[in-house]
Amino acid sequence: MKQNEGEKTMDFVVIGGDAAGMSAASRAKRNRPDIRVTVIEKTHDVSYSACGMPYNIADPSRPMEDLVVREADAFRKQGIAVLTGHQATRIDRTAKTVSGRTSEGNPFSVSYDALLIATGASPIVPDIPGLNLPGVTGVMVLKNLEDGRRIKNFIRDADVKRSVIIGMGYIAMEMCEAIRERHIHVSMIKPGPGLLPWMEPQLSEVVRQELESSEVALYPGVRILSVEPGEKGLVVHGEGVVIETDMIIVAVGVQPNSGIAIEAGLETSVRQSISTDGFLKTSDPHIYAAGDCADAFHAVTGEKVWIPLALRANRAGWAVADNVCGKPVSLPGIVGTAVFKVLGLEVARTGLTVQEAMAAGFHPVSGVIQSRSRAHAHPGASRIWVQMVADQKTGRLLGAQMVGGEGAAHRINAVAVALHSRMTVEDFSRTDLAYAPPFGPVWDPLLTAANQLLKKIAR
Amino acid sequence: MKQNEGEKTMDFVVIGGDAAGMSAASRAKRNRPDIRVTVIEKTHDVSYSACGMPYNIADPSRPMEDLVVREADAFRKQGIAVLTGHQATRIDRTAKTVSGRTSEGNPFSVSYDALLIATGASPIVPDIPGLNLPGVTGVMVLKNLEDGRRIKNFIRDADVKRSVIIGMGYIAMEMCEAIRERHIHVSMIKPGPGLLPWMEPQLSEVVRQELESSEVALYPGVRILSVEPGEKGLVVHGEGVVIETDMIIVAVGVQPNSGIAIEAGLETSVRQSISTDGFLKTSDPHIYAAGDCADAFHAVTGEKVWIPLALRANRAGWAVADNVCGKPVSLPGIVGTAVFKVLGLEVARTGLTVQEAMAAGFHPVSGVIQSRSRAHAHPGASRIWVQMVADQKTGRLLGAQMVGGEGAAHRINAVAVALHSRMTVEDFSRTDLAYAPPFGPVWDPLLTAANQLLKKIAR
Repeated sequence: MKQNEGEKTMDFVVIGGDAAGMSAASRAKRNRPDIRVTVIEKTHDVSYSACGMPYNIADPSRPMEDLVVREADAFRKQGIAVLTGHQATRIDRTAKTVSGRTSEGNPFSVSYDALLIATGASPIVPDIPGLNLPGVTGVMVLKNLEDGRRIKNFIRDADVKRSVIIGMGYIAMEMCEAIRERHIHVSMIKPGPGLLPWMEPQLSEVVRQELESSEVALYPGVRILSVEPGEKGLVVHGEGVVIETDMIIVAVGVQPNSGIAIEAGLETSVRQSISTDGFLKTSDPHIYAAGDCADAFHAVTGEKVWIPLALRANRAGWAVADNVCGKPVSLPGIVGTAVFKVLGLEVARTGLTVQEAMAAGFHPVSGVIQSRSRAHAHPGASRIWVQMVADQKTGRLLGAQMVGGEGAAHRINAVAVALHSRMTVEDFSRTDLAYAPPFGPVWDPLLTAANQLLKKIAR
Repeated sequence: MKQNEGEKTMDFVVIGGDAAGMSAASRAKRNRPDIRVTVIEKTHDVSYSACGMPYNIADPSRPMEDLVVREADAFRKQGIAVLTGHQATRIDRTAKTVSGRTSEGNPFSVSYDALLIATGASPIVPDIPGLNLPGVTGVMVLKNLEDGRRIKNFIRDADVKRSVIIGMGYIAMEMCEAIRERHIHVSMIKPGPGLLPWMEPQLSEVVRQELESSEVALYPGVRILSVEPGEKGLVVHGEGVVIETDMIIVAVGVQPNSGIAIEAGLETSVRQSISTDGFLKTSDPHIYAAGDCADAFHAVTGEKVWIPLALRANRAGWAVADNVCGKPVSLPGIVGTAVFKVLGLEVARTGLTVQEAMAAGFHPVSGVIQSRSRAHAHPGASRIWVQMVADQKTGRLLGAQMVGGEGAAHRINAVAVALHSRMTVEDFSRTDLAYAPPFGPVWDPLLTAANQLLKKIAR
């Protein structure tokens, strides 16, 4: 390792070898080959496409390893010390060390000059009698590659015909599609009211219809009393509902893996995510946090939020690397752009919901329009719905949601950019968006939504 | 017609009954039912989707009338006087009248208080011996519904097997796809060098390969000497090339129909388009111009441009209606967002090319990246290319071009919004764009392009 004579090189240590962690490690090494970079990862997989897991599960012919973007050895060849099978359990901020145990039970300790906590998030497992993982066969979560392998193997080995998904969020929806691809019946159950409660009701109704048209049984607002072994498989006892199943996927959401940070006395914020500033620095100037374990500023409200998403994790990882290497980078906020596919629908959102806008002190006004994905008389068009939210007082655009058969996923980005630019709805309504008959009406659905919302604002 | 006692109502006259004209007429009547609105249209079709014509031609089972968005009678029922078959030939700005002749040869004259010229554009027919339309059977242009009917009928009646398209622009490309759908061989020929000369060469090469993979014969940079009758059909004599064909489509571009405005002494600008201000007013305060006959300001350069596109025509029509009705509306500039589909490719652009940026006094720097339309390991991905242009001095984003199998058309809108907001490439590179495996990589191709371009700017 090249380093300047007589000058101590820097030790950059990363806890967590997924999106944020490996992005940071790799970029830091590229930025400054003289820095010693060490990654501590509890599993044996680094740098894989976690978001791709449902699509991999959908296809029995593809190995889970397809999702590995870069093997640990490739990082090692780059000069990064990748310690897989190493569980970090403690940060000593005075001694500046991270210690823990290997999967074989051996203790380890690593010194740092700069530390990045990129421990990600963990699936929440609700407290339901009989649901205690990993004790019960056939009850699984989907977080890391090992979880993915477990689900895939179980589907194959247990000849799964019926499944229950607990939860109705993004991952639940993507898993629903994957399991339907495998010709397995899906029941979705959640105690909270409403499918996708953040969604405008007209739009979530479209999603509901799509799920039901694919014979997915939906049980929203049903408290789950217990899970018990059945004659074959498992039985889910809900209030007024009994569902026999071969497999249960728990997908009720995730929580930040901030325990190690909290124990080290670092400040936390929303949902106990690790509090960071624009430079991704925690309350300890030698420690950064990035990815699903860390919070962020919302570019629309300026307030702290915890919205764990992959792009942010990668971007924050890069920014940490630059900051560690002495190229200060402050990230602007996020706007919470998210998209998922469920069966024949694209579902997208960015910015604030009406409820979020109210909570942030805006005076939200919103409207829903229905339009088409292709021009008048163009064959193959499907319907597309747009909800747009603005501030009544200033006319500022605050957020949008879309659902449609095609063209929702990429369209949302135009609104995301507008949110970063603090555009008004009027400004947005006058943007020069693309038009050709195969891709939309002359007035893009987003412009129609903006035009309609303008009328409400003008009132 | 309802009007205030003793108060003269206003006469709003529109020349041209397509996108801009009918948008203006209809909105003016909705805004203020007391206004008398008259539309003068030389053909018998109003309010149809001109851009949809290639796709209609592609399908012999669909009548051309599918493209009519709203019949003339529907506008008449709304209280608008729609004079179809009326060719306006003269504007008397002193008497404030428009006069002309009907298709039966009868003279007419209409008085106006406010006039909108929305005469559109006409196909350019190059001066080639033997190409004089409409004298030669089998040589056609595509501008209005009647042209579309003529092409469609000719394909059916003349049993067309071979075609030549003169030109390689948007409409030429769309017609190429339409004609290939009809299993007719296509040769494309143009005297100017290069397929899509405004395109970055790597990107236009992708288009060239796509055309050739569909057995389209390309003759760029070939001067056409003459068109002559052949044994069956026609023979195109180019320099070093002889092409026998059953049909010739002339699609070398369009020019603004500004003759009537020029004769009336109104100012013109780029390519003799009618000069307008932000309120769509011409040099005569009682006369507006909108749509393909009028110019516009470019939001990136602030300079006058003539970019005839459908969304602008509709939007400008609305703005004229509002202005005529006493609700002043000034439109911001356009950014020249355009998109087309050709065979299996989506092609999109917005903002300035490197050449345009230089001409406007910027110091352009640009880069091309290749990425994928779906995430790592996600099945069904196709390649996607992005060129991005920025100003080296200020880092400002100036334009982008994209080509790809999917996901280029809607993605371009994010850049269009960024151009309206005068974002820098750095700002854009930090926007929170959507990610899910079916829709793109974690780093959207646009972000990858921005990240790469940033490195060049930083140099």
